[in-house]
Amino acid sequence: MPIVVDHAAARQRIADLAAGIVATEGVGALTMRRVAEASGASRSIVSTYFTGMHDLLLATFESAADRQAARFEAAVGRSARLEECLETLLPLDAGRLRDWRVIIAYLGMSVADPELAAIERRRIDGARRRVDALLVRDRGLPRGTAETRRDARTLVALVLGIAVDVAFEPGSVPTPMARRRLKDALRSFPAR
Amino acid sequence: MPIVVDHAAARQRIADLAAGIVATEGVGALTMRRVAEASGASRSIVSTYFTGMHDLLLATFESAADRQAARFEAAVGRSARLEECLETLLPLDAGRLRDWRVIIAYLGMSVADPELAAIERRRIDGARRRVDALLVRDRGLPRGTAETRRDARTLVALVLGIAVDVAFEPGSVPTPMARRRLKDALRSFPAR
Repeated sequence: MPIVVDHAAARQRIADLAAGIVATEGVGALTMRRVAEASGASRSIVSTYFTGMHDLLLATFESAADRQAARFEAAVGRSARLEECLETLLPLDAGRLRDWRVIIAYLGMSVADPELAAIERRRIDGARRRVDALLVRDRGLPRGTAETRRDARTLVALVLGIAVDVAFEPGSVPTPMARRRLKDALRSFPAR
Repeated sequence: MPIVVDHAAARQRIADLAAGIVATEGVGALTMRRVAEASGASRSIVSTYFTGMHDLLLATFESAADRQAARFEAAVGRSARLEECLETLLPLDAGRLRDWRVIIAYLGMSVADPELAAIERRRIDGARRRVDALLVRDRGLPRGTAETRRDARTLVALVLGIAVDVAFEPGSVPTPMARRRLKDALRSFPAR
């Protein structure tokens, strides 16, 4: 690894490599040594960017959550409709499936790790706020009501459930089916 | 632990103790030693019921999935409506939240463990078949169509998403909110 002046960029790059390991081999396979090998740097150089294994775990989980949020925000930025924005959250290509596998892997650890659980809570809450704003903009729902918030939360839960279902689908990414299920669910939205 | 003649019952009892450990401390805390301590038996006695650690992991995951299926079947058996049957799958009390925490903990490990992933696949597929049959019985949807199957799958995904969301909710079990979100989603079901 070349000398990287930007500490944050180096952390990000290493967290991205770590995400690849977690997505294919699980959190159990993630070690400083494996990450060092993958980055072509020594273990001691990698150690300068993370205070320890738990810091690396948190950074890897956050990097997957951040990529999801960025995809959604990019769709909102190009004025995509609700459905297209929600689709950015579904595992419809290899990159998004990889991030979901990372998120699911960390969900398991989060059951007994408050700091990881807090990242998952922020990930869900962030998605909910973004969907809430879109329901106002794209579907004309009233801003700031309990009903709109609940609708947003239900859509985020639906996307999460479809993603877990798809992630455990044998074989390749069943793109059309996952997209169709989201489309079906949205047809009847909002319910009131 | 008293001498248990029924091998299957003893396995079940130990898997249930193991589920309690996983739900509160995560899969990482599950060891033969811990399970032996919790059961009051020696490590060597516990070992006679499981071929090894992986066998115990599988049995614990299956026991949580089986309890979910049994709650649903019991509701179907007493001719409960669709909504009430689906509610048996939500983490609306301590026992159901415990089983969801076990399932979520194993979801993470399943990313890199084909045998655990197969249990999750069976859990989702079983729930989908049961909901499919209920959509026919309770909502009059046509039997065996792709649309009914897709509706069933969407409902199971929604329940899964709500359960994960609720499981990472800080504090106690937010029962009314989770129930309300399922009710909202069902109001518009089926979408066609």
